[in-house]
Amino acid sequence: MIKKKIGAALLAMFIYSIVFSQQNTGFRQGSINSPVVNEDGSVTFRLRAPLAQKVSVKGDWEVNAGVGEMKIDTGGVWSYTTPKLPSDFYMYSFTVDSVRILDPVNAFSNRDVGNLFSVFIVNHGNGDNYSTNDVPHGNVSRTWYPSVQFKTDRRLTIYTPPGYETSKNKYPVLYLLHGSGGDEEAWISIGRLSNIMDNLIAQGKIIPMIVVMPNGNAAKQAAPGETKENFSYKPGMSNTLGNSVPGSYELSFDEIINFTDARYRTKAEKAQRALAGLSMGGSHSIVISADHPNMFNYVGLFSPATPSRRTDTTNKAYSNMDEKLAAQKNNGFALYWIAIGKEDRLITSVADFRKKLDSLQFPYTYIESGRGHIWSNWRNYMLQFTPLLFK
Amino acid sequence: MIKKKIGAALLAMFIYSIVFSQQNTGFRQGSINSPVVNEDGSVTFRLRAPLAQKVSVKGDWEVNAGVGEMKIDTGGVWSYTTPKLPSDFYMYSFTVDSVRILDPVNAFSNRDVGNLFSVFIVNHGNGDNYSTNDVPHGNVSRTWYPSVQFKTDRRLTIYTPPGYETSKNKYPVLYLLHGSGGDEEAWISIGRLSNIMDNLIAQGKIIPMIVVMPNGNAAKQAAPGETKENFSYKPGMSNTLGNSVPGSYELSFDEIINFTDARYRTKAEKAQRALAGLSMGGSHSIVISADHPNMFNYVGLFSPATPSRRTDTTNKAYSNMDEKLAAQKNNGFALYWIAIGKEDRLITSVADFRKKLDSLQFPYTYIESGRGHIWSNWRNYMLQFTPLLFK
Repeated sequence: MIKKKIGAALLAMFIYSIVFSQQNTGFRQGSINSPVVNEDGSVTFRLRAPLAQKVSVKGDWEVNAGVGEMKIDTGGVWSYTTPKLPSDFYMYSFTVDSVRILDPVNAFSNRDVGNLFSVFIVNHGNGDNYSTNDVPHGNVSRTWYPSVQFKTDRRLTIYTPPGYETSKNKYPVLYLLHGSGGDEEAWISIGRLSNIMDNLIAQGKIIPMIVVMPNGNAAKQAAPGETKENFSYKPGMSNTLGNSVPGSYELSFDEIINFTDARYRTKAEKAQRALAGLSMGGSHSIVISADHPNMFNYVGLFSPATPSRRTDTTNKAYSNMDEKLAAQKNNGFALYWIAIGKEDRLITSVADFRKKLDSLQFPYTYIESGRGHIWSNWRNYMLQFTPLLFK
Repeated sequence: MIKKKIGAALLAMFIYSIVFSQQNTGFRQGSINSPVVNEDGSVTFRLRAPLAQKVSVKGDWEVNAGVGEMKIDTGGVWSYTTPKLPSDFYMYSFTVDSVRILDPVNAFSNRDVGNLFSVFIVNHGNGDNYSTNDVPHGNVSRTWYPSVQFKTDRRLTIYTPPGYETSKNKYPVLYLLHGSGGDEEAWISIGRLSNIMDNLIAQGKIIPMIVVMPNGNAAKQAAPGETKENFSYKPGMSNTLGNSVPGSYELSFDEIINFTDARYRTKAEKAQRALAGLSMGGSHSIVISADHPNMFNYVGLFSPATPSRRTDTTNKAYSNMDEKLAAQKNNGFALYWIAIGKEDRLITSVADFRKKLDSLQFPYTYIESGRGHIWSNWRNYMLQFTPLLFK
């Protein structure tokens, strides 16, 4: 009798499985497995493409510049195994006879600017902090704030830490900015922001905090696909300024802070406010914190662009930078943290910016990492920067 | 002087564009444009693949079963133009010499169960309601609720309507369930839920409401990639039950309602509560509303699976269904709404279920649409069902 019941239940499950798919998705190819992260930290990629002449994989790992030539077996399956890769989150694609494709048997992908990539994680190191683990999870919201400056609503992504919704506590806030071509989805997707925060909070390494990730493109309300252009918009590197006034985004940043303090239970004071950004977001962080010289106690510049190239001395956002930095220094702050990779093309302009800071006796921490202008560095900088905040 | 300033600003923008990408994303292929929705509602697909022997497109439109054979031009670009397509949101992929690929020049994709698809919208009809328009936008949160039943936190997606955060009002709630193989991302991505709600609210066609989209797979805490298996999990049609007890999810639904009523400003009463689901989520909706016969004033069944096949008369969730339905009927409700496509394989079991309802003199509304077990129908059912709620 018990057996019969289990049999009926299993049968019901089976019928569910084959009949009640959400939709016919019978495209899945074969039974090959790709990518496979091997026990030694190498990664094997496979693609069934019996008619192809040439197949390669290109990813954002360092060894062999992320390129692997794949070889075909008698079954028509191409494969390539990397050397051991450092623990990290990785993006890759295949090129099949000159056509760039995602891995057809990998269901997981991310968009970076205008391109999609298949993704995977190598564990046992930084990658563990970029993974979902069995720890309490924060809440991630996509919401819209009203902008008077831009006469429209604009979209942002907000992380609230585990326990926020069930407590009455107020929380410190990190404002976290993306780079050129990026948007309010960048840090939460490729940046693995919610995983990093969940994990570091669970490990007791960071103070639970709210993280606000706005769209930093003056010309765009929202990420590609989330604006009224919908999918007719072709995302590229020209998202940023459009016809808007340079500096208009940086000068409008009060709107984001005011929105956050009104909507969320924040500790709305300088001591409990941090600002960080990567690349263009680093430039934004320099300018916004200088233009609001008593607003942020912590500033993080990740592979920052620098506003020093700005020659327009009449622009309100960029003018009188020395005076603004001097005021910021005199007001005092807890941390001004700069990190950049040794191979980053921006390292010379960052050196110039550091000279300016030195000449102003402006205190800062400087970290020089390996590699260049890449997400691997920016995620890693987050692991280093966030434990320094609000302590 | 003004010219010079504009020149400097443009130069700065240009430098940003080429230097300060988020990462090197120089994979984007050529300058072809695909897909292009033409003025007459036909759609042209293009793929640069000079070395390929055979290229086709497969999408989820009805004409030619969504298949188009593509033809190559002298420049190595394959193309195909569909006949005029009805206004809708569409998914498609290419097959290049037996390899299924996304469109490399389309940045927009969705995952359906275990496969990725490129996507586009044809406007001037239903597709307008699946688009982002210049209307107020609701907030979309991914959050986790504690489940005693499953001894873990489980993830869900919640839409709150425009104005929720700035008002003190309480709101009605629609609980909206996915199908087998789906998860808490299904309705918000392919289902275009936030677009549908934003647009119908702006048009005055529906009452502003909260929409709760839980993960209905007893065996899974969260969507693929959002569990501790991370990307090593291969999503397929077997997500649903795993080793869990059949009916355990349906019987645990109080946890989701209690969480929602505690966390959000809901009108926590039967008159202000709706439950709907597609396919397996339709079966869940039948069972949950029957097992909670005085909880929901509105029930929507979209291409529903039906629990009638369940022969296990001792299972608490599925047993004594006639008595439960009779109790549900006697308690009264405003709407029990069933819709299914004429070509749907489930139409015969839905007919059996309707006979049962008829025999119980259980009142319901029945809609028979075109086509089959497809997202096009489920989105369209949402356009029809939600205006009937909470009025």
